[in-house]
Amino acid sequence: MYKLVLIRHGESTWNLENRFTGWTDVDLTPTGVEQAKQAGRLLKEAGLDFDVTYTSVLKRAVWTLWHCLDQMERTWLPVIHEWRLNERHYGSLQGLNKADMAKQYGDEQVLIWRRSYDTPPPALEASDPRSERGDLRYAGLAPEQIPLTECLKDTVARVLPAWNEVFAPAIKSGQRVLIAAHGNSIRALVKYLDGIADDAIVGVNIPNGIPLVYELDADLKPIKSYYLGDAEAAAKAAAAVANQGKA
Amino acid sequence: MYKLVLIRHGESTWNLENRFTGWTDVDLTPTGVEQAKQAGRLLKEAGLDFDVTYTSVLKRAVWTLWHCLDQMERTWLPVIHEWRLNERHYGSLQGLNKADMAKQYGDEQVLIWRRSYDTPPPALEASDPRSERGDLRYAGLAPEQIPLTECLKDTVARVLPAWNEVFAPAIKSGQRVLIAAHGNSIRALVKYLDGIADDAIVGVNIPNGIPLVYELDADLKPIKSYYLGDAEAAAKAAAAVANQGKA
Repeated sequence: MYKLVLIRHGESTWNLENRFTGWTDVDLTPTGVEQAKQAGRLLKEAGLDFDVTYTSVLKRAVWTLWHCLDQMERTWLPVIHEWRLNERHYGSLQGLNKADMAKQYGDEQVLIWRRSYDTPPPALEASDPRSERGDLRYAGLAPEQIPLTECLKDTVARVLPAWNEVFAPAIKSGQRVLIAAHGNSIRALVKYLDGIADDAIVGVNIPNGIPLVYELDADLKPIKSYYLGDAEAAAKAAAAVANQGKA
Repeated sequence: MYKLVLIRHGESTWNLENRFTGWTDVDLTPTGVEQAKQAGRLLKEAGLDFDVTYTSVLKRAVWTLWHCLDQMERTWLPVIHEWRLNERHYGSLQGLNKADMAKQYGDEQVLIWRRSYDTPPPALEASDPRSERGDLRYAGLAPEQIPLTECLKDTVARVLPAWNEVFAPAIKSGQRVLIAAHGNSIRALVKYLDGIADDAIVGVNIPNGIPLVYELDADLKPIKSYYLGDAEAAAKAAAAVANQGKA
């Protein structure tokens, strides 16, 4: 039996400002740092240990992992950056306020952008200063690999190859894997692992900074999964995420 | 022409308490964190950029690198842990106060332990709770690879293979390399690069948290080297290091 742990980053400055973030590289808030440290303490108390860790190329996830590792006294573990763990790209909504958009376009339209499985928000222009196509961290990718917008389906389509090529082989080789990532890249993994339908995954909310443990069988099928720590706090945190897009 | 940047970690809790640290895994102080951030700002202002970074498996160096990378907006760069970049092992002196030892054994004896090229301090017993032989981070090594004490010569003997096998090939392949490490592992690199004699290297002090830039020719021979920022501050910091072992 294998174990895999997933953690969504702690609260970011744009979570706090209620702005669509996507691939924009924003910092953790002091609350987010505390959530990350608490996640590390929970992992340590639960006796969970790791051989290799993965995170995105966005610093809210990277710092979450670093703080976690520090609390676990594991700052020496390998940290591998995997751009395919990035948050869903939010297209031309990146940087805009969720409630403002709800006022302008209505709760329903924003809910579609936030929670439709296959309808992406309006795309960024490649020439938009917010586009990541000139960003050095993606220099190794072809321009068309760098999205200008994504629906969750698109995010799933880029996360799953990383699962198949990187994470699953690592787990099967006996490495204990910790992944610090984002709401939608974790949703993509959860959807795949738990076999959740397209129309149901949008109702699954991943709370910030609470370790989600999967126990997997020899074929990497989930035996069970659970959040560490206070389950009620996890549910409350998830509900808070669900309510962010209301006017 | 290639560039290589070396940084000694910022002030650690045991630097502050004037204790022999060696392989003991102690934290940065708030001053050390600020030094690390300042190093990152200096690197950014100098327009230096990197493709890969290396550090030890000790958190004062790891955190120094992480804070540096954050200031450079490069939290997404690969960080590779290399145990051979660890500080010199201080044997049975690890944890003891430098001034206390000077009072007990005399300034001269402590100076020999601190600055002799080939006289190691008394060894730890392998069974000593301070020994790192049971530490998970070294689980991949044979017990005899994990020192019980080291003189600088021993440190040089383990750092140079890492240079030859890891850092030099990376640099020659065109990767811009940043190394965050320790006083003596950096001394080992400086000794090799600058061809400093055994009896002279012990007079070379590496200040905490000040980037040391090497410009190297096609054969990785130094064309020049310099500290970033305030050269006078660097000299003062280096002198402070030299004076730590006085009663």
